[in-house]
Amino acid sequence: MQKKEAPLHNNLAWPTVQRLSEYLIILEQFAEGGREVISSSELAEVYSNTPSQVRQDIFRLPNTGRVGQGYRIKELAEAIRETLGLDSVTKIVIVGCGRMGMTLAQHIPFGEHGMKLCGIFDNDPTIIGLEIEGTKVEDVSILEKKVVESAVSMAVLCVPASVAQELADRLVSSGIKGILNLTRQRLKVPPGIYVQYEQIICSFMQLAYKCKQSPRPAPNL
Amino acid sequence: MQKKEAPLHNNLAWPTVQRLSEYLIILEQFAEGGREVISSSELAEVYSNTPSQVRQDIFRLPNTGRVGQGYRIKELAEAIRETLGLDSVTKIVIVGCGRMGMTLAQHIPFGEHGMKLCGIFDNDPTIIGLEIEGTKVEDVSILEKKVVESAVSMAVLCVPASVAQELADRLVSSGIKGILNLTRQRLKVPPGIYVQYEQIICSFMQLAYKCKQSPRPAPNL
Repeated sequence: MQKKEAPLHNNLAWPTVQRLSEYLIILEQFAEGGREVISSSELAEVYSNTPSQVRQDIFRLPNTGRVGQGYRIKELAEAIRETLGLDSVTKIVIVGCGRMGMTLAQHIPFGEHGMKLCGIFDNDPTIIGLEIEGTKVEDVSILEKKVVESAVSMAVLCVPASVAQELADRLVSSGIKGILNLTRQRLKVPPGIYVQYEQIICSFMQLAYKCKQSPRPAPNL
Repeated sequence: MQKKEAPLHNNLAWPTVQRLSEYLIILEQFAEGGREVISSSELAEVYSNTPSQVRQDIFRLPNTGRVGQGYRIKELAEAIRETLGLDSVTKIVIVGCGRMGMTLAQHIPFGEHGMKLCGIFDNDPTIIGLEIEGTKVEDVSILEKKVVESAVSMAVLCVPASVAQELADRLVSSGIKGILNLTRQRLKVPPGIYVQYEQIICSFMQLAYKCKQSPRPAPNL
């Protein structure tokens, strides 16, 4: 049993959740750079939105570290972590350890953001047994066993589209709550299970659309 | 000079652009599976929205391939491509060929979606000269020259956060229109230049938040 399932502030609007997670990354960078206080207008400028939007979002947090004209960065970051529930651990598995799965296993700082990578699975015997960032790649045939044993709640799907639904079904029946889906396969899941699509090709297409709205500027070298 | 800069339907609302690009991936999969016609309710079910939303979005397209109760998939996909401007080529470079840059170069089917990968750049002598999917990794010192020569309009930034702004500046001064930013560095760019953030860690945090809204279901194996 996980102890802390419900965060202090649940039912935040989805765009608020999205912005808060992105503010957090910005605040962490400021903190790394040694900065202690940030104003809503500075955060808005870096994020590219408005100070009033930033203040509205921060207003949803329990303890904002407000001081004079700004916010203490460490306290504000902590408040976001608490509100998003990142202060209790979410257990994760990566399913599919091709190039993308391996890149995520190596790149994503799970530990810094309230997540713990509990397993990486593949069906390729040349990959099974490899150790990636301290986690051994295991045979996908024991996926259900490991998800149940470790009470894993989130999975990342990086498998070929043709087997994505089958693996999603296996994950759901093992008690998973959420799937981050990097395949191009849309998934059918029961109510109460969350699928988040991460389709990088769509980001490319969306940006290409924007880029075509006006002529390419002249170089200025 | 690129001939076709403005698509037929510009100024679509951003969420519409996002949904259309995602419908396109779904339609392409149905087409691959040999299907010819799809109804708005079937598309809505796969996408997880409502038939009326799907119909509203499709209503923005020039030629929808409407037939009886549904749409001819190939025509609908073609209409989306045309509307998003994917029928004219957007030239792209990848800047930074670490694990993530290399994964994108190998994974993203640029050619299938109106994009052409015109260059991959890095500063690591052990990587420069490698050939990835037919494109040679070049020294980042010639980045500006190549972007200007080929009239590249989009760049993907996969470099360490510490050098992201510097490289964005160099890209902008070479005449780039849009940057897909996979670093965690927020970028300052002049008006009229588009930055799209692709922060996978934020998707993880957002999904983790959702997963904590209710208890983990019991396994059902």
